[in-house]
Amino acid sequence: MARIKKINHVAIVVPEIEGALGFWEQALGLEVHHIEEVPSQKSRVAFLPAGESKVELVTPSSSDSTLAKFLQERGPGIHHVCLEVDNLEEMLADLKEKGVRLINEIPQVLPGRKMAFIHPKSAGGVLVELYEVTAEGH
Amino acid sequence: MARIKKINHVAIVVPEIEGALGFWEQALGLEVHHIEEVPSQKSRVAFLPAGESKVELVTPSSSDSTLAKFLQERGPGIHHVCLEVDNLEEMLADLKEKGVRLINEIPQVLPGRKMAFIHPKSAGGVLVELYEVTAEGH
Repeated sequence: MARIKKINHVAIVVPEIEGALGFWEQALGLEVHHIEEVPSQKSRVAFLPAGESKVELVTPSSSDSTLAKFLQERGPGIHHVCLEVDNLEEMLADLKEKGVRLINEIPQVLPGRKMAFIHPKSAGGVLVELYEVTAEGH
Repeated sequence: MARIKKINHVAIVVPEIEGALGFWEQALGLEVHHIEEVPSQKSRVAFLPAGESKVELVTPSSSDSTLAKFLQERGPGIHHVCLEVDNLEEMLADLKEKGVRLINEIPQVLPGRKMAFIHPKSAGGVLVELYEVTAEGH
């Protein structure tokens, strides 16, 4: 059976990244590793490593995205937690068999990783992302 | 200056721990290390290690607690993220100097760790806990 290796990241939705860095970078002392545009999610993401995990500051790059809607309705705050697995396809098949509702039954492929979201209805209200890293640094 | 070492845990508020284990333990395959009563927080906590971090399932042990109020108002979901620091007093002094609003200006001392919360108003809507581990396994 597929296994969870670690928390890959905690994603925090922010109105804009530069403003959020005042707290996460300047006050707390985390450092931005890089900032990435993620067109498939209509978002822009800053990656701040913390041990083997990352804090990700995520901001919508389009006002018609799911993320923009989340931000409008719930305000800034923690958006999701991402768990890294050793085999994403195997984990998804196993979850499906156990009756867990998935947002992505087929992984989305992004540079350096494959990802899928579990529906919060099956995860006690938590948006859980699953990640399989396919290249170092993700 | 004090330094963030890692994400110590992500805390998820649940109506009751046993019910939540159906997802976190049975479906995802995480394992409960132990369950602890935390009287100072009027809560009960299950610790599920994930790499160097933990998922913590937290449930109110009293209906008049801040946590019970959170659960009533916002429903189950992610409650806070906890960052582990090498020196909590130094970090708190530094944050205070930078104008960051703290919920606990003086650390609370619990078995194996010292902890303090930063006010979400200073952290872009996120409830951030800071931890200094004083005994292995916390």
